[in-house]
Amino acid sequence: MHSWCYPVKIRDLTPLLCPESVAVIGASTNLDKPGGTLFKNLVEGGYAGRLYPVNPRATSVMGHQSYVRITEIPEAVDLAFIVIPHDSVKASLEQCATNRARACCIVASGFAEVGETGHEEQEELRALAQTRGVLTVGPNTIGLVNAAHRLMGTFIPFSAWQSGGVAIFAQTGIFAGAPMLQIMSQESQRLGIGVSLDVGNKVDVDEVDFLHFVSNDPGTRVIGLHLEGMGRPRTFLELASRVKQKKPVVVLKPGRSRAGAEAAASHTGSMTIEDDLLDSALRQYGLVRADDVDDFLSYLKAFATMPLPRGRRLGIVTYSGALGVVAADEAAAAGLELAGFATETATRLAKVLPVWHTPRNPADVWMAVELSGSRDGHEVPLDAVLADPHTDMVLGILLVPPGVDFGEVRQVFAGLRTRHPDKPLCLVLYGGTVRDRWLRELEGLDIPAYPSTRAAIRALRALAEYAERRDRNVTEVAP
Amino acid sequence: MHSWCYPVKIRDLTPLLCPESVAVIGASTNLDKPGGTLFKNLVEGGYAGRLYPVNPRATSVMGHQSYVRITEIPEAVDLAFIVIPHDSVKASLEQCATNRARACCIVASGFAEVGETGHEEQEELRALAQTRGVLTVGPNTIGLVNAAHRLMGTFIPFSAWQSGGVAIFAQTGIFAGAPMLQIMSQESQRLGIGVSLDVGNKVDVDEVDFLHFVSNDPGTRVIGLHLEGMGRPRTFLELASRVKQKKPVVVLKPGRSRAGAEAAASHTGSMTIEDDLLDSALRQYGLVRADDVDDFLSYLKAFATMPLPRGRRLGIVTYSGALGVVAADEAAAAGLELAGFATETATRLAKVLPVWHTPRNPADVWMAVELSGSRDGHEVPLDAVLADPHTDMVLGILLVPPGVDFGEVRQVFAGLRTRHPDKPLCLVLYGGTVRDRWLRELEGLDIPAYPSTRAAIRALRALAEYAERRDRNVTEVAP
Repeated sequence: MHSWCYPVKIRDLTPLLCPESVAVIGASTNLDKPGGTLFKNLVEGGYAGRLYPVNPRATSVMGHQSYVRITEIPEAVDLAFIVIPHDSVKASLEQCATNRARACCIVASGFAEVGETGHEEQEELRALAQTRGVLTVGPNTIGLVNAAHRLMGTFIPFSAWQSGGVAIFAQTGIFAGAPMLQIMSQESQRLGIGVSLDVGNKVDVDEVDFLHFVSNDPGTRVIGLHLEGMGRPRTFLELASRVKQKKPVVVLKPGRSRAGAEAAASHTGSMTIEDDLLDSALRQYGLVRADDVDDFLSYLKAFATMPLPRGRRLGIVTYSGALGVVAADEAAAAGLELAGFATETATRLAKVLPVWHTPRNPADVWMAVELSGSRDGHEVPLDAVLADPHTDMVLGILLVPPGVDFGEVRQVFAGLRTRHPDKPLCLVLYGGTVRDRWLRELEGLDIPAYPSTRAAIRALRALAEYAERRDRNVTEVAP
Repeated sequence: MHSWCYPVKIRDLTPLLCPESVAVIGASTNLDKPGGTLFKNLVEGGYAGRLYPVNPRATSVMGHQSYVRITEIPEAVDLAFIVIPHDSVKASLEQCATNRARACCIVASGFAEVGETGHEEQEELRALAQTRGVLTVGPNTIGLVNAAHRLMGTFIPFSAWQSGGVAIFAQTGIFAGAPMLQIMSQESQRLGIGVSLDVGNKVDVDEVDFLHFVSNDPGTRVIGLHLEGMGRPRTFLELASRVKQKKPVVVLKPGRSRAGAEAAASHTGSMTIEDDLLDSALRQYGLVRADDVDDFLSYLKAFATMPLPRGRRLGIVTYSGALGVVAADEAAAAGLELAGFATETATRLAKVLPVWHTPRNPADVWMAVELSGSRDGHEVPLDAVLADPHTDMVLGILLVPPGVDFGEVRQVFAGLRTRHPDKPLCLVLYGGTVRDRWLRELEGLDIPAYPSTRAAIRALRALAEYAERRDRNVTEVAP
């Protein structure tokens, strides 16, 4: 019989995410094996605490003295990783408890996700963790990262990690795995992730504990939660509703369809809760729900980089009339309003446009590049629409074929950002090699570039919805 | 007064898209100016017909003898480009008619898109074109491309053009402009476009003429139409309904919202037709409607590369359980069915998976890579699910962190494609540098890789819907 009676209290994840000492049970001298790679990541990631490989067949791993068992380590460690095959996991967790380890991360899989027997074995881990008081993550996880603490506790071989204000909790390795490898290997528009915790089958440590930790983490600006099941929804919603007044909370909860719920059950052995109920609860409590992985990452990027808008009035500056039409449709579909420009804005736009051109929103300003040159053709329209008191947020749809390039791209956009610090500005950027260069120039300016108009407008909508609900007390909302 | 009385008859676009002689009015010796770039593109694109620059201030352009006026060219040209400022356009079109030019492409802008006066001027062009019988494209266009005819008639400086089975008609330059530059500059997953015609404000040549031409063009496999207005909807729908029995027709018709319709009116001066009405007509006539630019390009890629499915039963092979859950949700939202695997498939999957793993759909097969190696871990599950008689189409969600790579990627996927020629297979691929290499290896195998699960599933749905409606006679459908 499985049980979903999570501990009611919220635990402090400091030993797990900011450990002063770490043991790796299964630290292999073969650095291509998971246990070897994880240990190497800790070492090369610059972990500054005490590090203990546990490997009965080696005297040392990467220059660190090796131990036969965790119980032989001369201190109670804060965190132990268990990177050994399924059958030895329970015994290892018992030894961690004997060592008085405060937290434990079980990488091995083959538990609740594989059926009845695995489920029972996982319940044994849960009982052990909770009776002995070891904060336990996993099983079936790729690990955890806390970049500020230089803790790269994952077996995924990252060559570089882009730190930043995003904290991610997931019941999967994907947000620290291959998709993240891809994001991190891009030359630009990487997502800066400060904390990433994959709890896999979520035997013990859960989203509530995580929310509590990151809400107090000074480096975290926005929190992303990927949930397949939810063990204590009431506690979660009440805490999240408080946390969201300080930091946006974005939730990706797949399994909304019957097919998806069944797949979730077989992926992490998760029980699902009624989706409609969850959806209205999330909205009511002021959380942001992402429909899919793309939205999830887009929204996190939006909150990590842009200020919040004061309202839903969107100004669009486009260098393609056709894409302006598409953007107007997308804005309407997303419930954003096209701002009516102030007279001053029309006057400023008119200065860089042909006389026959009547500026309206979306402002189709391709002719400004032809008539006034590329620099002014970009700076003047974007500045005018950002300055307009009738716009709450601005989307720039830029086309950069050769010939449109200019030298001071970074300077111009940094200036726009500095002069209008309180208004979200994001871009969609089309072109070949010039586009790649512009994206590099924009790096770090807090002006995100999205791959499509749809993605950009949905991200802006997420900002607007959060801004509207942030300060709303949940008791004001109808149940 | 403007008029929307297009000619009823369908015209033959051979002189426009397969001209034997071309004049460029405004062929500049400055190859960075639009008229210079367009002429250069024709020359460097390898246009094999007779080429006449018209430029009163030069004796020759790129080694071709220049003419003061088109009327001095010693033959009636098939096609004349007009790449001169707005004010001289009408006189030039008159001279084209005097030359007995059969077709004309007006690049200049400043007509119906700029208001009342421009609208009147455009009506004068229309009257001139139609009374003198010159097939006229534009104004406000970036030009046209027919790759098979080596006709690169655009002022966008393409360094490379990926030819292929896609034909695009647009009321905008974007599908031959900056977005296409971006697609064409990618190392892989380029969209092969054989024919691209931007008609801009659509003064004369329209979607009906284009459909007729490409339906008979042997190189065209799929037709994409971007429409802001529709001049003769009944003729269009009747023709499209016949054409779609041979070739899929994908329609992007923005302006569905009021804001979008207003933006369309100011972009190309288009009248809009009621969107709900259009939407049901498109469905009824068996056309595929794309919601946005991303869908439009995704669907074209799908039709250009994949066979049509026999039904809606989807098999998913995933290397991330979490992404499998997301995919199951997306499939349900798109109206696709998760196939129940045949016994044989489960048996084949079991051979590469741990004993405790029960294969189901989505098949979460990450463990196959760990247990059976990367090559078998990919080939066996994908082959089994493709071979399954209960699947009509297959989506592979691949994760390729370092360590998952193997040498025979191209060989394995080419084999899958060859052994299962009648079943659509597409991929979503996550990872860093290994992913980039795999994408290059997949190039040309007709296995498209989409940027997200959502995009992939929507593209598969488009294939299934088209397959269902292709052979349906429109009279069978309720009005």
